[in-house]
Amino acid sequence: MHVTLVQHHVLDRFVQEAYRRVGLSEADAKMASTALVTTDAWGVFTHGTKSLTPYLRRLQRGGLRAQGRPRVVSEGGAWVTVDGDAALGLVTSTFAMHQAMAKARLEGVGLCTVRNSCHFGAAGYYAWLAAREGLIGLSMANDVPTVAAPGSRGPVTGSNPFSYAVPAGRYPPLLLDMSIATVALGKVFAARDKGEPIPANWIVDGNGQPTTDASGLPGRGALMPAAGHKGYGLALLIETLAGLLSGAGFTSRVGSWLWDDGTKPTHHGAAFIAIDINAFMPSAEFLKRVETLIEEIHTAPRADGVDRLYMPGEMEWERYERALKQGIPLPDDVLGALRTAAELVGLDPPSEALA
Amino acid sequence: MHVTLVQHHVLDRFVQEAYRRVGLSEADAKMASTALVTTDAWGVFTHGTKSLTPYLRRLQRGGLRAQGRPRVVSEGGAWVTVDGDAALGLVTSTFAMHQAMAKARLEGVGLCTVRNSCHFGAAGYYAWLAAREGLIGLSMANDVPTVAAPGSRGPVTGSNPFSYAVPAGRYPPLLLDMSIATVALGKVFAARDKGEPIPANWIVDGNGQPTTDASGLPGRGALMPAAGHKGYGLALLIETLAGLLSGAGFTSRVGSWLWDDGTKPTHHGAAFIAIDINAFMPSAEFLKRVETLIEEIHTAPRADGVDRLYMPGEMEWERYERALKQGIPLPDDVLGALRTAAELVGLDPPSEALA
Repeated sequence: MHVTLVQHHVLDRFVQEAYRRVGLSEADAKMASTALVTTDAWGVFTHGTKSLTPYLRRLQRGGLRAQGRPRVVSEGGAWVTVDGDAALGLVTSTFAMHQAMAKARLEGVGLCTVRNSCHFGAAGYYAWLAAREGLIGLSMANDVPTVAAPGSRGPVTGSNPFSYAVPAGRYPPLLLDMSIATVALGKVFAARDKGEPIPANWIVDGNGQPTTDASGLPGRGALMPAAGHKGYGLALLIETLAGLLSGAGFTSRVGSWLWDDGTKPTHHGAAFIAIDINAFMPSAEFLKRVETLIEEIHTAPRADGVDRLYMPGEMEWERYERALKQGIPLPDDVLGALRTAAELVGLDPPSEALA
Repeated sequence: MHVTLVQHHVLDRFVQEAYRRVGLSEADAKMASTALVTTDAWGVFTHGTKSLTPYLRRLQRGGLRAQGRPRVVSEGGAWVTVDGDAALGLVTSTFAMHQAMAKARLEGVGLCTVRNSCHFGAAGYYAWLAAREGLIGLSMANDVPTVAAPGSRGPVTGSNPFSYAVPAGRYPPLLLDMSIATVALGKVFAARDKGEPIPANWIVDGNGQPTTDASGLPGRGALMPAAGHKGYGLALLIETLAGLLSGAGFTSRVGSWLWDDGTKPTHHGAAFIAIDINAFMPSAEFLKRVETLIEEIHTAPRADGVDRLYMPGEMEWERYERALKQGIPLPDDVLGALRTAAELVGLDPPSEALA
């Protein structure tokens, strides 16, 4: 795969400016850019600045409100409900995780549910917002149905991203960011575009049968849930907290941020949980325990041919450190998306890479 | 498989009496019996009264303290930490979930971490304690390592059970109870005992390679995490909340409730979360939304040859209703275990079934 190194600050400046051109405030543009650029720096290019173009389109068409202001609609002890006002999901989710964190600092735990949001990018970004301030963070969202239930013919739940982050002392935070599907839709599309067969546990066809032929999606068939009833069950927990309990849309009531009418809100829901470690034990003691766990896994016996055992997020943090020093190695599809974004808002693409 | 119908109250009386004979108070005996008999009534026989014998042995040897009293060691806003005092895991976990529920009723959310506990049976039982009182419940625990990390040669994490339960109005509660391994160790042992090959994604051998030969476990090799890095990542989240944050043992510091010295505590940890629906929206509105979701899935198009799409727990609740009317259909291995339990404490086996 061909990549182009783009400096972090160059990419960040470009994304911020693009957001401002469609009417976002300086603060929101910065917040939303940080989420996308951080995700690219982790090497999670499917959920980083590649999404800028569809976000800008929705912002231009009004389905996403550039001047939307997420607000607390009700709250109490350890809980908060936020209405996203159809603002950019990245802005609403950053606001909501900070609500959960504030509650956690007061009450030990905080749960913030969110309605009237949209696609929020990488779930892990919000979990990390908590972890970088010493809290444990959990983050999840629902989405338009793309994943089958065991035995269904078509999609029943969203791929419903889930993430957690845990501070880890002298090591980078544990950071898991997963969908409840076996594989991302993007990987299926990539195989389809190349005409390649896919593994038999990725998708079902239009008759609900496992298939190695990716040509049906989207339209016929669906992704398979990871580990069958386990992934399906987790999808419904996420749907419960992010969709049902929040007052958001759920399952088929959620719109596609990519394919559906760009003038209408998508009614995504989300939920954010923060836990204050210091409520339970002195943070220093906890971090020592996490470090011990990490060292135990790092030194555990490995299978033949395996060089290292990784903690969740460890690969992403190594890419992140490298990206901050050397530049972010953007693949060609991301560069292409950024060129489109630049055209959309009448902006020059980031000069070093895209001239 | 041969089964014997045993009436719910007959089994319950027997289990209670067995617990009392090894020194449990009447209240604890009743609490612990209800957990096991409910689990059998769900048809989850791997985690029901079959475990009575090893529990009784540990209670007789002192590693489990018959007169142990779980107690709150610290608490605040929405959080509680419980020390199980090496009491039976079923007793400590019931106590702890009620602590989380009390916090949730006050603050919207409650998180109770537990240390100095032991094997707690079916995670789903505690989640259901919350759901039957109208709250959302989550339950999880760590355990002695039996599951590999991606690339490891042997076990790194426990199979770390996770469960949630959600009230569902006119439908039985959603109830997922899963381990983070691809499959339960019991299924591997069953195949091993019959000399049958197993699917290639169940376990790794002593070199860390996938194998269809179950003969190595326990001893060499390990279970595989469900969906690879996803199951592994979830295992570490559970380890974080139930093991690290609680002050319990974690990974290799947890003892096996089955195999290790019966005179010593096992230092299992657990975590229980309760969420008060009414904090977020009127319960009636939430339940209507859950009912709509269930009806949407029940009527979704099905794959050829599939009669029904099930919600998590739906099969278990149907077995439960049948068991309460007709008796619990105990398989022979459970009956055998109950005979051993009866001998251990000098009690007649439940008369209707085991005379």
